[in-house]
Amino acid sequence: METLYIVKVGGNIIDDAEKLSNFLYAFSSIQGKKILVHGGGKLATKLASSLSIPQHMIDGRRVTDAETLKIVTMVYAGWINKDIVAKLNARGCISMGMSGADAQTILAHKRKHADVDFGFVGDIDQVNTGALMALLYQGISIVVAPITQDPGGQLLNTNADTIAQELAKAMSLHYSTSLIYSFEKKGVMRDVSDEGSVIAQMDASMFKQMKEDQSIFAGMIPKLENAFAAIEAGVSKVIIGDALELANLIEGKSGTTIR
Amino acid sequence: METLYIVKVGGNIIDDAEKLSNFLYAFSSIQGKKILVHGGGKLATKLASSLSIPQHMIDGRRVTDAETLKIVTMVYAGWINKDIVAKLNARGCISMGMSGADAQTILAHKRKHADVDFGFVGDIDQVNTGALMALLYQGISIVVAPITQDPGGQLLNTNADTIAQELAKAMSLHYSTSLIYSFEKKGVMRDVSDEGSVIAQMDASMFKQMKEDQSIFAGMIPKLENAFAAIEAGVSKVIIGDALELANLIEGKSGTTIR
Repeated sequence: METLYIVKVGGNIIDDAEKLSNFLYAFSSIQGKKILVHGGGKLATKLASSLSIPQHMIDGRRVTDAETLKIVTMVYAGWINKDIVAKLNARGCISMGMSGADAQTILAHKRKHADVDFGFVGDIDQVNTGALMALLYQGISIVVAPITQDPGGQLLNTNADTIAQELAKAMSLHYSTSLIYSFEKKGVMRDVSDEGSVIAQMDASMFKQMKEDQSIFAGMIPKLENAFAAIEAGVSKVIIGDALELANLIEGKSGTTIR
Repeated sequence: METLYIVKVGGNIIDDAEKLSNFLYAFSSIQGKKILVHGGGKLATKLASSLSIPQHMIDGRRVTDAETLKIVTMVYAGWINKDIVAKLNARGCISMGMSGADAQTILAHKRKHADVDFGFVGDIDQVNTGALMALLYQGISIVVAPITQDPGGQLLNTNADTIAQELAKAMSLHYSTSLIYSFEKKGVMRDVSDEGSVIAQMDASMFKQMKEDQSIFAGMIPKLENAFAAIEAGVSKVIIGDALELANLIEGKSGTTIR
């Protein structure tokens, strides 16, 4: 099977024009089929603040009321998505920007939670790969903003890491899919304060052992659980590492590769 | 050749939730391949006002400084585009939302004008139909927001009527293309104050005669000049009429059909 790269890039890169430019250069240099999933960055919070719309975060998740949904849709699927697309096109990496709602690619439902009302936050039920396949087949790369919808037409703010993972799982039926979580860290580290302690390769038994030994940074555990779930579901590999070393991540020269 | 419908809908429909809902129902009921091009409506002006970003209009065109470009991109390509897409999907009309920048479908340049600096306003140079064709072939409808880009990656605010026209001209190589300008009027009228004076059919010689006689509402003349230019360029027909009578427009039962 042909290789597909699905790259998630974090908000801290989006927020920094120079870092974003470097990252997009590296992304556009990836040979072959590729999808970029971007998070939000601070622009949504800034816009909400300018409009005096109070923002509440619970467990790192933005509580999304109707006004906030409008803001995140405007910022993520509007400005950030189109700015990235225009810059990639200018580099010769012809790209279609879209949200999970477009072509009903990702169907979700409003999160049900016993204690907390997260508002218009989506949990993913289904991925439809038709539009993605048709565009990739044309040699067009895809840039996905973290907005989805429910079957009734309600837009929903949705975690970008989860979108990347669900896309990777669905696309692994058609491609040998590499899922790359790129952010501000060098990879999975034994010691979070020591960038030299990056674990280059990791498999399920090693992860189990490290959890038992507590020899892994607790904050990485949910990301790793998701990574191993993706592998279980057919994704070829998951790579975690520095967004500014994207080429090296793909070649296995930096970051953590999970199989 | 198969028929393609390209429907431009005006801002006054976008601004009214009930009218928009009725319009989208009619759009989703069109059998066959279809593209919707939407304008902006008042939401961009409202958002600019909430953010205290002064707006200037010259000849009905928004002067687009850097902050205003961000606003129109957020509102047109973000909120309005995704809201329409989610509603069409919910009606079973599976739709991909995009701007002219996406997949480098529309390349434009920053408007050059001897006296006025319109800012980041685009005039169209080129239409690339690859992504549109691939999506339409999949049975996916397309919703286009009026934002384009230049080859250097600069996003540009671009007139939605012109986008609809240029898409229609380019797509007429592949489809028998009907271009429908839907707005708040019943069609081209002999007398602007009399809705009964709609001209059902119009050809170039009739238009020439009516201009000479001054028996046509002056405000319609630029729209009609564009319509006849589209016909000259291969578009099968141009229909002008009431957005809330879309089905009748397509069947020639209301509005003005130009051949």
